[in-house]
Amino acid sequence: MNNLIQPKILKGFRDSLPNDEIERALLTEKLVKVFRNSGFVPIDTPALEYSEILLRKSGGDTEKQVFRFNDNGGRDVSMRFDLTVPLARFVAEHHSALYFPFKRYHIAKVWRGEKPQAGRYREFMQCDFDIIGSDTAAVDFEILSLIKKSLNELGDFGFKIHISHRGIFTRFLTVLGVEGESEEILRTVDKLSKIGKDGVLEILTDLVGGEKAKKILEFVSGAGENNSSEDFIKNLKLVENLAGGEDEDTKRIKEIYDLLCATGIQESFIFDSSITRGLDYYTGVVYETFLTEVPSIGSVCSGGRYDNLTGLYMKEKVVGVGASIGLDRLLSAFEELRQKKPCRSFITAIIFCMNNADQILAYKLSAFLASKNINVEVYPEAKKMNQQYSYAEKKGIMQGIFLNENSSLSDFEKDKENFKFRLKNLATREEEEVSLRECLEKLK
Amino acid sequence: MNNLIQPKILKGFRDSLPNDEIERALLTEKLVKVFRNSGFVPIDTPALEYSEILLRKSGGDTEKQVFRFNDNGGRDVSMRFDLTVPLARFVAEHHSALYFPFKRYHIAKVWRGEKPQAGRYREFMQCDFDIIGSDTAAVDFEILSLIKKSLNELGDFGFKIHISHRGIFTRFLTVLGVEGESEEILRTVDKLSKIGKDGVLEILTDLVGGEKAKKILEFVSGAGENNSSEDFIKNLKLVENLAGGEDEDTKRIKEIYDLLCATGIQESFIFDSSITRGLDYYTGVVYETFLTEVPSIGSVCSGGRYDNLTGLYMKEKVVGVGASIGLDRLLSAFEELRQKKPCRSFITAIIFCMNNADQILAYKLSAFLASKNINVEVYPEAKKMNQQYSYAEKKGIMQGIFLNENSSLSDFEKDKENFKFRLKNLATREEEEVSLRECLEKLK
Repeated sequence: MNNLIQPKILKGFRDSLPNDEIERALLTEKLVKVFRNSGFVPIDTPALEYSEILLRKSGGDTEKQVFRFNDNGGRDVSMRFDLTVPLARFVAEHHSALYFPFKRYHIAKVWRGEKPQAGRYREFMQCDFDIIGSDTAAVDFEILSLIKKSLNELGDFGFKIHISHRGIFTRFLTVLGVEGESEEILRTVDKLSKIGKDGVLEILTDLVGGEKAKKILEFVSGAGENNSSEDFIKNLKLVENLAGGEDEDTKRIKEIYDLLCATGIQESFIFDSSITRGLDYYTGVVYETFLTEVPSIGSVCSGGRYDNLTGLYMKEKVVGVGASIGLDRLLSAFEELRQKKPCRSFITAIIFCMNNADQILAYKLSAFLASKNINVEVYPEAKKMNQQYSYAEKKGIMQGIFLNENSSLSDFEKDKENFKFRLKNLATREEEEVSLRECLEKLK
Repeated sequence: MNNLIQPKILKGFRDSLPNDEIERALLTEKLVKVFRNSGFVPIDTPALEYSEILLRKSGGDTEKQVFRFNDNGGRDVSMRFDLTVPLARFVAEHHSALYFPFKRYHIAKVWRGEKPQAGRYREFMQCDFDIIGSDTAAVDFEILSLIKKSLNELGDFGFKIHISHRGIFTRFLTVLGVEGESEEILRTVDKLSKIGKDGVLEILTDLVGGEKAKKILEFVSGAGENNSSEDFIKNLKLVENLAGGEDEDTKRIKEIYDLLCATGIQESFIFDSSITRGLDYYTGVVYETFLTEVPSIGSVCSGGRYDNLTGLYMKEKVVGVGASIGLDRLLSAFEELRQKKPCRSFITAIIFCMNNADQILAYKLSAFLASKNINVEVYPEAKKMNQQYSYAEKKGIMQGIFLNENSSLSDFEKDKENFKFRLKNLATREEEEVSLRECLEKLK
């Protein structure tokens, strides 16, 4: 037992140090506030489930990426790799105990054994919100509105939510007579931003011939690169014509747009027929969200409508619509967008320790300040001052308190208001003698 | 793919339905607030670590309970079974990036393959807070003070924190000449509340003889069953004498007590020499917390001081002191203590849907109310009223809004303040026509 073990974590996994963890917690708290105020409720599901439940639907790629093993009881189990499959199982299992439309959010970790690379981890947080059980423009709109509210709450940055409809695209492919290739076409079109128009055209030409390939490119290019919110209806009309005219799907998009306009948020939305969400399970409206200043990081919030959430577990079809916020992506975008912020502290001041004998007085003063809603730390032992200063700086505490050498407990007890000590601004290093009353005024 | 899979979760695992999850979230938020205001910072560590890191120290029992497997890369990995071993690894790994005393909290899930039984689960939340790197009465006191603040924040219920000192007990056993049996004695004494004095005496008599067994029982019985806060010093003196007089350990307890008195919280603390924390790794002060009205559920917050957190990973000794709140236990205690509460909603009112054509008006009204900080949901489709009422009831929404049949968008736009609709108290079923201005006053 005397050999030391090197303290290290698994590749692709991360520790979260305090400043990062505070940042992440504050971000999550803001999202939770918006979700709650919009009538969404939280659920939780186990990290570990039967492999049969989690993996039945997914293809070989997912399976390779999953942390799967036999537990001590010989059960074939897997760690969840997303929050959608557990939601499907949850809704099927608790169907009779739930109420619909069921608006739930779930912020939790998932695990994938992917090859670790920049910005990709084997353990990461997902933040999903869905409305289950209503196939209406109203709840499609609610999810879109919630994406906007959530991102607005997180900070002052520009973004656009790009909307499209999987059904319109599917109809267009049928009209074009290439519905048999739709999987391959979806896969190709999804690469538009990666390989460009020429790359997509080349692959599509091989697949369906030059004429049809051009048509498909025309469809997904919509109004082109300068596509904006004002062109929403114009764009919609364009793809509607290519798909053979108005139908339920195009009507649905119009209804959603009317609700966006009615609530005055239409400017954040673009109709963008290049959004297809690849091979995802969506069947209705689909969307991705891009930051105006850092579009290169990709979509920070994606989602859409699906027509059969619980198909693996129950006969009755359960529809839904939802989205997922990419917290890790957003956090790295925030780092690009802003200068590195000083670390956040919930502590207003620290009482430095010059003499261990003063600690009773220091904690008494600290308790008194806390009763006035001023949070104060006490440095617990008379270490060298540079160590104490460094502690305060690393924790982002802005004010320091020095007790006077001749202060006594009885001074404090006799006349708290006029009890005197030195208050030091740790940024400017200015120091002054203050009474407790003056200190309270300053620190409030 | 047509066979349905039965939606079920693993034995010993739980789904958390919305009302339970809201309850747990609110409880956690209260704790986080107290931790932050006391200068504690959050960290996070991976759910999965090298088995070598997590299991080196633990005995065979722990190992049997751990979810351990080889990942796809052939690494021997385990899911964390507590937050203490990961903390030790974290402190050793990030030692140079941290500042000390390092006050951290960590609220996260852990996994143990224990036999599932009432109140025991294979996945549960731990809530730990520790101060690393200072061996002082000051930080011992800070943890005790934080236990009190945390529990006070959670609700209005009685509790006592029972304190003892592992070092005093060890010295007493040495004075008695039975230090060789200390492991077995600790194990036995820890069962006092389970098997009673007679049971303990019997086992101890077999182990060290009747005379010494009685002495040990005298030590751990302290002031007996009516032991109270007022007897703190009296009790301490009693065991101090049995252990051979004053030393650093008994002085430490007195210093801690002085700080409890100075901050006026001593009434929540009892010196109770029956607290030993069994075979845990504690070396200094130890404590357990019992609820006055439901002592039977056992300690809801336990902890103590340890002298070598990181011994497996680094040569330098790192001291610490900390505690762990039993969230699951507290939640079940709360259920016993109170009548079942109505579910909590963050939504003030719901706009019922009588006619799908009204939805634009409904969402407009909802957005307007939200801008006045009144959170309103819109029921998204014109389902039967009993379904809509049931939805509101299940979500705990107390007020319903009915738009008037002849209301139009232009009525609302023209004169919002005097826009009229019916407001229904869903509990009393009283209904009245109000203007938007009146509604705002009522719902604020």
